Amino acid sequence: MKKAVCLISGGLDSYVAATIAKHNGYSIFALTLRYGQKNNREISCAKKISAKLQAEEHLILDIDLSWVDSALTNKKIQIANTYPLSEIPATYVPARNTIFISLAIAFAETIDAEEIYLGINSVDFSGYPDCKPEYIKKFQSLLNVATKKTCEGRHIKLNAPLINLSKSEIIKEGDKLKVDFSITWSCYRNNEKPCGICPSCILREKGFKEANIKDLAIKNK
Amino acid sequence: MKKAVCLISGGLDSYVAATIAKHNGYSIFALTLRYGQKNNREISCAKKISAKLQAEEHLILDIDLSWVDSALTNKKIQIANTYPLSEIPATYVPARNTIFISLAIAFAETIDAEEIYLGINSVDFSGYPDCKPEYIKKFQSLLNVATKKTCEGRHIKLNAPLINLSKSEIIKEGDKLKVDFSITWSCYRNNEKPCGICPSCILREKGFKEANIKDLAIKNK
Repeated sequence: MKKAVCLISGGLDSYVAATIAKHNGYSIFALTLRYGQKNNREISCAKKISAKLQAEEHLILDIDLSWVDSALTNKKIQIANTYPLSEIPATYVPARNTIFISLAIAFAETIDAEEIYLGINSVDFSGYPDCKPEYIKKFQSLLNVATKKTCEGRHIKLNAPLINLSKSEIIKEGDKLKVDFSITWSCYRNNEKPCGICPSCILREKGFKEANIKDLAIKNK
Repeated sequence: MKKAVCLISGGLDSYVAATIAKHNGYSIFALTLRYGQKNNREISCAKKISAKLQAEEHLILDIDLSWVDSALTNKKIQIANTYPLSEIPATYVPARNTIFISLAIAFAETIDAEEIYLGINSVDFSGYPDCKPEYIKKFQSLLNVATKKTCEGRHIKLNAPLINLSKSEIIKEGDKLKVDFSITWSCYRNNEKPCGICPSCILREKGFKEANIKDLAIKNK
């Protein structure tokens, strides 16, 4: 069976992307990073998601990024409820996707996977540089010369199937594939329940509303 | 003062590269990865090297790569004394440089550094894909679209000043810049003294011999 490495954050995008991988006939090798994010509920959600996906393996790696300049990791920087739309928000984590994708490449090479599925998308959070089609294109070009496997002529493909979808389109796609959104977590904060007012909560609420689908996560938390 | 992030492994190449950075007027921000390498003497050498370089900061990060397919990390794979020259050796660590450079980028963006100095070189270990000029070129191209900083028009340069040098040329360059080779460690094994017979020890010995310089590390170990 073909293998895919799926970066699973605990949020809904990466879960939908991994579900597409499964739908495409791949066995799933899940990879989750515990990087010092303030919100550590993501990790328990990632475990539930991997179980739901019947992942062959779920690799959870620790890499401390609490020293980077980001509201998501650095205790000195507050998570605001709004950010100026013209700027890259303070929740941007320097090189996060580049670090995560590098680790996914090491995993893919080690288990001989053909694809790496990513939940990144650029429509709603258009500010993040490492969520854009151009970024994936350049990373693929690097990957083609970066590893033993790719230099021996075997391809590892970076696949970001949601890259051009809005949050509501992602939710609709997930709903079609019977994704269980109730086990996902989007809130930037680390409360018992999603705060409902951070940019990630707002975007999620808007997405479900536009998709005309009920968000079952709220009552379960 | 201009800042440079220098990946410091504890070996001699990265020390020479960082010394070039210092010579070029940069203040040094050292980054060392404890990634589950069997040889952990590298780390104590990296500390000594950072002290010698009077680094502003020495960030030592832990990332467990003991699960990857490499003789340097996986206890099930032996470190051989010779490898077929036609193949990428078993000491190749999947995506290691890609992971390390990604973390260096996060560091560079956080402290607002202009350059990242790397000790990689492709002349002697020509098998490693992630030590070639083409690899650095593609990574630079990715980096230019990957971060908040680079998307805002500020450049972070990947600088691999040794990339086209042989081991003996690197040693001569280091000698000229008064690098203290006695505090470096090259051996793949984790003995009290360098084993003298692994590919890395052999290459080091050959390099010093060709450069006609005495390797003071041997007697100090």
